[in-house]
Amino acid sequence: MTPRISGARLLETLERLAAFGGRPDGGVDRVAGSVEDLRARAWLAGQLRARGLVSWTDETGNVFGHTPNVRGGRLLVGSHTDTVPAGGRLDGAYGVMAALEALTTLHEQGHPAADSLEIVSFWDEEGAQPESSGGMVGSTALCAGPHLADLSAFVELHIEQGPRMELAGQELCVVDGIVGVDRHLIRVVGEANHAGTTPFSLRRDAGRVLARATAGAHDLMRSVSDTLVGNIGSLTLDPGAPNVIPGAAQLVLELRSPDEDVLTRCADLVLQHARAVAAEDGCTIEHWMLSHKPVVAFDEGIRTLLEKVCRSTGRPAGSLYSYAGHDAGVLSAHVPTAMVFVPSTRGVSHSPHEHTDDRLLTQGAQVLLEAVIAHHDSR
Amino acid sequence: MTPRISGARLLETLERLAAFGGRPDGGVDRVAGSVEDLRARAWLAGQLRARGLVSWTDETGNVFGHTPNVRGGRLLVGSHTDTVPAGGRLDGAYGVMAALEALTTLHEQGHPAADSLEIVSFWDEEGAQPESSGGMVGSTALCAGPHLADLSAFVELHIEQGPRMELAGQELCVVDGIVGVDRHLIRVVGEANHAGTTPFSLRRDAGRVLARATAGAHDLMRSVSDTLVGNIGSLTLDPGAPNVIPGAAQLVLELRSPDEDVLTRCADLVLQHARAVAAEDGCTIEHWMLSHKPVVAFDEGIRTLLEKVCRSTGRPAGSLYSYAGHDAGVLSAHVPTAMVFVPSTRGVSHSPHEHTDDRLLTQGAQVLLEAVIAHHDSR
Repeated sequence: MTPRISGARLLETLERLAAFGGRPDGGVDRVAGSVEDLRARAWLAGQLRARGLVSWTDETGNVFGHTPNVRGGRLLVGSHTDTVPAGGRLDGAYGVMAALEALTTLHEQGHPAADSLEIVSFWDEEGAQPESSGGMVGSTALCAGPHLADLSAFVELHIEQGPRMELAGQELCVVDGIVGVDRHLIRVVGEANHAGTTPFSLRRDAGRVLARATAGAHDLMRSVSDTLVGNIGSLTLDPGAPNVIPGAAQLVLELRSPDEDVLTRCADLVLQHARAVAAEDGCTIEHWMLSHKPVVAFDEGIRTLLEKVCRSTGRPAGSLYSYAGHDAGVLSAHVPTAMVFVPSTRGVSHSPHEHTDDRLLTQGAQVLLEAVIAHHDSR
Repeated sequence: MTPRISGARLLETLERLAAFGGRPDGGVDRVAGSVEDLRARAWLAGQLRARGLVSWTDETGNVFGHTPNVRGGRLLVGSHTDTVPAGGRLDGAYGVMAALEALTTLHEQGHPAADSLEIVSFWDEEGAQPESSGGMVGSTALCAGPHLADLSAFVELHIEQGPRMELAGQELCVVDGIVGVDRHLIRVVGEANHAGTTPFSLRRDAGRVLARATAGAHDLMRSVSDTLVGNIGSLTLDPGAPNVIPGAAQLVLELRSPDEDVLTRCADLVLQHARAVAAEDGCTIEHWMLSHKPVVAFDEGIRTLLEKVCRSTGRPAGSLYSYAGHDAGVLSAHVPTAMVFVPSTRGVSHSPHEHTDDRLLTQGAQVLLEAVIAHHDSR
């Protein structure tokens, strides 16, 4: 008979974890490296030991847990316990607490799959503190270290952080992969001048060009492909004074799609439009690609296994691409990896209002446990 | 016979002043309160004393000069010797050096007008250092102090800082007044969200609204009235991260016109447009008027006197409104005030490339001297 996780215990540990950095508004401030983050990691290690399990922390700060009799070729399961500032109680935390619950249940019942399982809370997934190297710090370090050789696969359970599952009435999704993410810096070069004494006809106003290029980029992003989302989250005028015509201006364009051709096509169109409006105002465009994160496709074997498990619970899984980055994207380059999503109420995440129904949280953790068993049985 | 200024001496003192904070590119760094600014003021005081004149500095930092026998009811003539960072050698400096030359000439020749003249280099006209209260600091302090009672009028000679005189072939202009300047803060309020997981249809993107509102404002500014110029020199997105949809955004709109109705009409149209594009994206607009500087009309009597003097030199003056602020705008509320402009080559100002031909600089200073005599004779 298939073991059952304890929903009550899962929800209780989630609540206890949320107290570390807990905010009056229900949100959590637990940025990686903060006192709250360190205390939460110490608490997790204590929980593991209190349940008769082994806990260890690597030099990066990743916290691991397994049974005393753990073997090699382990399935790694987990996520992260750090949050963005004013984040929610589920992003990352849910995947770690569900992994803890699955390991505890299998260990308590003496299930043979327990000894081929290791759980993890990665260090600094969010990259939210200014001195971070940009997030995914712990998973990146793991993949560069010797412990990687002990692992045979990775599964991460996470909230969707978007509204698509709720809109589609899906309770579970097996994630196809993670979209590619390109960031472009587009700089307009004009000429700074006195904002009172310079007639419009003699201006080379980089700010006007930036506004028109940005407005046009938003329209283009919406028209290039249904698979594309994008953002312009940063606009800067130089020198930025009310009484000086901007001599230079820049924007950062971020594009996401599961199709890298779409990323390239959209960037090309945005640049073409920017160059056209720049020329009208005597300005020029400079362009740098700041970063290129390729599309990640998760392991087909693990995805099929997860779909089978979902079907067997009577809740067939949908599938989608993740438009957010995850530690699983890092692991995927090294071991067979996949993810399972549960819905986010109204799609809200990175917010104190992050929420998923208790029933769906419990159901997701049970799927995780069954996936661990299925993976064990498949080897 | 009318006294003649010494063009050679004027140009030499201009060159010596430009050495204080002089840059290799020909520009000047002499921000108010800097060591260079203080040394330039000490040098000016020394020049006055070396010419047998009296120099004194008030508690604000304004440097004054006059003959030993100066009377009450003085005509004040001057400008400022502080510059913007990487400024030019003429903005302000020209008006002070021309005043010094006029006073020196009249004093040397024992002309009776010398004793009814006082010259000034105002403290911190530019407001360029971060801790400044916004410029015109010295002239504002003068108008609040007891020395105002000694003054009967103010005349400021200045470079145009714009291209209109050069384009119109004018060598001299008597300034009608200073345009009104309104600054508006327009804030877009939307909703910050994850830039990957939030579909376009569910976004309330304050950045997109800001870009469209800014582009629209630029078009409106160009169409409302030929007398209006405006600038959007500051754009801000909040939180300003590439991977976060902007939850709020703001711009600072600066409008200038000699017609206050035009200022109001343009601001209304910009706001109306901003509200319309905000509504399309589920955002709202907040608005504050940051500052309102009313239109300044210079004294008709002084303007007529200046026009007469220009005509008598054989160079009839044009007239225009100044689109830049000046100390004369402050004085104008307290004593009869007017200004004379000489052209700026290619309209360049606040730049190391600021330039006016030596002949025009000399001619302007001679007009200033003759205006001092005419004002003396008229009393």
